[in-house]
Amino acid sequence: MLVVAEKEIGGLMTPEAAFQAVEAVFAAMASGKAYNFPVVREAIGHEDALYGFKGGFDGAALTLGLKAGGYWPNNQKHNLINHQSTIFLFDADTGRVAAAVGGNLLTALRTAAASAVSIKYLAPKGAKVLGMIGAGHQSAFQMRAAAAVHSFDKVIGWNPHPEMLTRLADTAADLGLPFEAVDLPTLGEQADVIISITSAFSPLLLDQHVKRPTHIAAMGTDTKGKQELDPALVARARVFTDEIAQSISIGEAQHAIAAGLITEGDITQIGAVVNGSHEGRGTAEVTLFDGTGVGLQDLAVAAKVLELAKAKGIAQSVEI
Amino acid sequence: MLVVAEKEIGGLMTPEAAFQAVEAVFAAMASGKAYNFPVVREAIGHEDALYGFKGGFDGAALTLGLKAGGYWPNNQKHNLINHQSTIFLFDADTGRVAAAVGGNLLTALRTAAASAVSIKYLAPKGAKVLGMIGAGHQSAFQMRAAAAVHSFDKVIGWNPHPEMLTRLADTAADLGLPFEAVDLPTLGEQADVIISITSAFSPLLLDQHVKRPTHIAAMGTDTKGKQELDPALVARARVFTDEIAQSISIGEAQHAIAAGLITEGDITQIGAVVNGSHEGRGTAEVTLFDGTGVGLQDLAVAAKVLELAKAKGIAQSVEI
Repeated sequence: MLVVAEKEIGGLMTPEAAFQAVEAVFAAMASGKAYNFPVVREAIGHEDALYGFKGGFDGAALTLGLKAGGYWPNNQKHNLINHQSTIFLFDADTGRVAAAVGGNLLTALRTAAASAVSIKYLAPKGAKVLGMIGAGHQSAFQMRAAAAVHSFDKVIGWNPHPEMLTRLADTAADLGLPFEAVDLPTLGEQADVIISITSAFSPLLLDQHVKRPTHIAAMGTDTKGKQELDPALVARARVFTDEIAQSISIGEAQHAIAAGLITEGDITQIGAVVNGSHEGRGTAEVTLFDGTGVGLQDLAVAAKVLELAKAKGIAQSVEI
Repeated sequence: MLVVAEKEIGGLMTPEAAFQAVEAVFAAMASGKAYNFPVVREAIGHEDALYGFKGGFDGAALTLGLKAGGYWPNNQKHNLINHQSTIFLFDADTGRVAAAVGGNLLTALRTAAASAVSIKYLAPKGAKVLGMIGAGHQSAFQMRAAAAVHSFDKVIGWNPHPEMLTRLADTAADLGLPFEAVDLPTLGEQADVIISITSAFSPLLLDQHVKRPTHIAAMGTDTKGKQELDPALVARARVFTDEIAQSISIGEAQHAIAAGLITEGDITQIGAVVNGSHEGRGTAEVTLFDGTGVGLQDLAVAAKVLELAKAKGIAQSVEI
């Protein structure tokens, strides 16, 4: 078994490599060559932890395995971050475990890569202004991945706690982009591409805020009850997602579905656009990517890290 | 992360240690301190493999994690056994991965330990004759575990392919016990304790075969459709199991349940007998343990192996 330590991931993986891995696995999902297993997610009744497994198999890349771990809200007392995960890869030809890879940074990178894939394929022509809703830990990853795939002139942003907007300003500065804090109506009016990455449980961006050709990557909603967008905005948009079953149940689309504004048939796998079997934006004014997060994304970036670690000779080999 | 290699397990783990680990976790399950997660089991469409995850959490022992792996029927071409699995333990306080342990031998030991626990608590008083139905790879583990927990005078056995009975004869000889090959009616008539461990899909042992106080450990049925016992025999017996939800759906009891001969309420967790909250055999003539196999058994024996490996200084430490 090869082991790639969490501390090595930052030096091995780039947003570009994560992008390529996630783009390829979305394509494999849409073509039926890759699929995700049922997700196990358990409140274990200890330390208020949520623990579980997200597995899958990519028959094109022969990537098999799972991400295991979860959310430990009291980890600060151990000087650890609250999200802890490890990705395990298995040899698809024999069933033997092949690798264990630290999954914390990779989770952030694969989530950012997903919105970036949607921006590559769905951003309106000539998009110049990136609007960020949310300024938490993940927001910086999202902005970097978006800037790596599309050339923006400016970033504007809003966050429920304005004092956190320095993260967006600093990240934009790193990328050489001007940043401006705005209110949500202004954000909706000026942004060509919007990434929302919050833990909101009620709509932030409303239908009337969005007045021009816009692509929205809604990345925050991954649980029943969470919500970032006005269902009327979802209904107006052409909707894409990573996995339709998750989009309608735990993703942003859950609310427009529940309200009867759209049906499952209105939602397209983003991989179909990557594959060229769906036109993508077409004549739509507003497009939406409902990013819910799937195990195959984790496996794809872990397989890439393993390849890079082997090439650099820093994968640790241990007998199992 | 600590890693214990498959090749070390045989030198670390004994049937006695496996017995204690499985007995304790069955008790924790029955007292509500330990539970198994939903099982993921997937036919991945590659190499005819079945792959999946069996996870759980024991809040008494603070054992958290999963067994991952499966069945690769073409592994002979790689000089590997068909069942391949790895057990991953996580720190219940932080969510960080703590250990990876080879799971192949442990799976055999924990399965054998389960029937041995049932024999300790349910064998008729003065039981002398052990009857073995099945002579495959797992049968030797079952016989050794049974002999470690109860003093038998003799082993009798039957197998659909009689040429395989040498395995039972050799194992009995190792244990210093006489062995006799018999037909199924004789086995049912003479044995005080019966272990069935086959891959049968129709009843082998019939109700009329069993004529004396007997404990039967039915260990082969772990999938919808498999069957080793006459449903009338199951209905006559006092039924115990590792996990009731599995017993009624994929265990031996599935058929008696489907036929309306027994209900879920007729089945008792074996851990309740270990805990002393259920009398066990009582006045029943025939007792049955429906062993279906749960992830917590795997975690329990892996935690024990890890403890032994640490004590002997042979757990490999690797940074993750």
